[in-house]
Amino acid sequence: MTTWLDINDSQFGLEALPYATFRTTTDATPRLGVRIGDLVLDVAAAAPGLAEHCEGGLDGLLAAGPQVWRNVRAEVTRLLSDPACETDVRPHLVPLADAELLLPFTVADYVDFYASEHHASNVGKMFRPDSEPLTPNWKHLPIGYHGRSGTVVVSGTDVVRPTGLRKTPDGIVDGPSIRLDIEAELGFVVGVGSEMSQPVRLAEAADHIFGITLLNDWSARDIQAWEYVPLGPFLGKSFATSISPWVLPLAALEAARVRPPERDVPLAGYLDDSALEPWALDLALEVRLNGSLVSEPPYATMYWTAPQMLAHMTANGASLRVGDLFASGTISGPEPGQRGSLLELSWSGAEPFKLEDGSVRTFLEDGDEVTITATAPAPGGGRIALGEVSGRILPAKERS
Amino acid sequence: MTTWLDINDSQFGLEALPYATFRTTTDATPRLGVRIGDLVLDVAAAAPGLAEHCEGGLDGLLAAGPQVWRNVRAEVTRLLSDPACETDVRPHLVPLADAELLLPFTVADYVDFYASEHHASNVGKMFRPDSEPLTPNWKHLPIGYHGRSGTVVVSGTDVVRPTGLRKTPDGIVDGPSIRLDIEAELGFVVGVGSEMSQPVRLAEAADHIFGITLLNDWSARDIQAWEYVPLGPFLGKSFATSISPWVLPLAALEAARVRPPERDVPLAGYLDDSALEPWALDLALEVRLNGSLVSEPPYATMYWTAPQMLAHMTANGASLRVGDLFASGTISGPEPGQRGSLLELSWSGAEPFKLEDGSVRTFLEDGDEVTITATAPAPGGGRIALGEVSGRILPAKERS
Repeated sequence: MTTWLDINDSQFGLEALPYATFRTTTDATPRLGVRIGDLVLDVAAAAPGLAEHCEGGLDGLLAAGPQVWRNVRAEVTRLLSDPACETDVRPHLVPLADAELLLPFTVADYVDFYASEHHASNVGKMFRPDSEPLTPNWKHLPIGYHGRSGTVVVSGTDVVRPTGLRKTPDGIVDGPSIRLDIEAELGFVVGVGSEMSQPVRLAEAADHIFGITLLNDWSARDIQAWEYVPLGPFLGKSFATSISPWVLPLAALEAARVRPPERDVPLAGYLDDSALEPWALDLALEVRLNGSLVSEPPYATMYWTAPQMLAHMTANGASLRVGDLFASGTISGPEPGQRGSLLELSWSGAEPFKLEDGSVRTFLEDGDEVTITATAPAPGGGRIALGEVSGRILPAKERS
Repeated sequence: MTTWLDINDSQFGLEALPYATFRTTTDATPRLGVRIGDLVLDVAAAAPGLAEHCEGGLDGLLAAGPQVWRNVRAEVTRLLSDPACETDVRPHLVPLADAELLLPFTVADYVDFYASEHHASNVGKMFRPDSEPLTPNWKHLPIGYHGRSGTVVVSGTDVVRPTGLRKTPDGIVDGPSIRLDIEAELGFVVGVGSEMSQPVRLAEAADHIFGITLLNDWSARDIQAWEYVPLGPFLGKSFATSISPWVLPLAALEAARVRPPERDVPLAGYLDDSALEPWALDLALEVRLNGSLVSEPPYATMYWTAPQMLAHMTANGASLRVGDLFASGTISGPEPGQRGSLLELSWSGAEPFKLEDGSVRTFLEDGDEVTITATAPAPGGGRIALGEVSGRILPAKERS
């Protein structure tokens, strides 16, 4: 299938069609958009029959469920591929430059997992050099924790360097973080909720998960290191989490699905995905710092899959709500150039690395801009894009 | 000041006036209520001038800010004390038995702290007998973590025993928790939000905190023990957190304010409350298990105060939203009969305790009902009540 639009070899073709919530200077109402090339389709304007699912942005579509998700995607595909639709649809295509992309959905609960074996092993080697790199529970369950949903922000939002307490050789100091980091992650967006005490089974994941978004879990390693025992990360993470404005529906990922790594510990029944269709995703991420490519994390290497994370998150009877966001944790592959955090890329600061402009980094400096992009295999060959999440570091503020 | 109502010596007199969100069989619209004796005042019906702050329940009042909070409380007090109002107001008093009490507000982010030195020390002694009871960071900052806001439920909601993974001598088992526990806590309800990268100072706490509610942070100790390293509690807590339907405004707590315990570690400036008006609260809690009084935790012994928790939670630039809920963590006093969890009351199961009916407990059994109540000193002597949070344990469900 091809579009009547001249979008050349854009990775935002008919096979991708990610959603956003956008507005324009001429119409400030937040509403649902779909990306095609460098344009945003105003869905409700182009297809009034879908308007009920477009009001306010993506929230309504999320809640509408899989049948509506399929219908909307099919209708948008038809509008953008049937030449007979061009005249009616073209007026409702907004140049990307004229669209203000908002936080794509209202985040209910935000959970961050720790699903990369390579990342968890690297962190273990750095911080617990005398122990096994992985904690004993790591291969038995997808470790996760709740983050702060109120500080999930859309790509492009500046991030003020956080200030907080850290331990130094001279004692406990309150000051700007000096080990400010990124975590390149994939976020999963829950559409349909679930009831309390009704765990979601692995096979039901696609009834609940709408799609994926790129996520940068900004992390102040020094604040985190001092605070996190025994209840986990808190202020080291809660100042900001950035997500892409684009949410790519699961339907666009059929060609990306691959088998997850071999599990070398037997899993409890509710996590055993050996008989499940493959749910690892062959996504290629790219992390750029001030334009320099610093890492290429491969998502296919993640140990735990989205259905496993979802099944685990609800295994105790916890319910889901529309807009729940759960993220993979830092995506790191086996190679040094595939690490999804500066903590790993600089090996906790011991191995500074160079950017293209010749400057050297361990952790983030003020003014640094980090951009994470990713692509997935397209059904007919070639690749589709997920969009991007970027953010720039502003200097810390003095305490007033 | 006295009310024209005949409420005898009720602890829900004019000095208390907690808020709830309620509806009735004759009017199913959720709306704001105020408790007086065993009646609920339908605020908007009795005072149409306040209706804009009552729609949907407490959410609107929370967002309206301190000046409106004062005005509404003053007007409700006038309506219930001025004999001239009796004829007009009496038709809008609903017997408690006819009111369905709902979750009082929409919970945005939920954070749980760990602010009791006695609780943290007891847990340390049980789980790390060879180390100092408190972790090195404990007296430098109020330790906290994010919980699941989507599973905060109102008092009276049954709690299904969670199922999950736990470590046993025979290996890792997936099954119903056998160490199901309570945590008697106080919750603080945020009304007015704050901006990102604008930490809230100690002295500004009352501009943001609307009031308090009783909270039971149900905990599956066995699930928690296996999962919590290194990212903190997750499924051991996220299945349910119960709160009282009653939110008592800070204005009712003036007579309860006492100095916090001496701080024996110097605090960072943003946490140093030595020059602040006293913010510890002399609340007396009572924990009942199937009607037996099992503990009387004294809130005044808490090491960290609400302004300190709030200042810390935002010290890294994290913003607040209307409806944020932060809780104290388990309230335990220095005496054995003042411990706010069964973990402590039974010393991790080693010291079973008796209920009035002669039965013995370590952790919760199916059918057990836990009720937490509390009172505070009233301005003119006597005491006011906070309401109650209760919940009953239903048997675990089989995994489907």
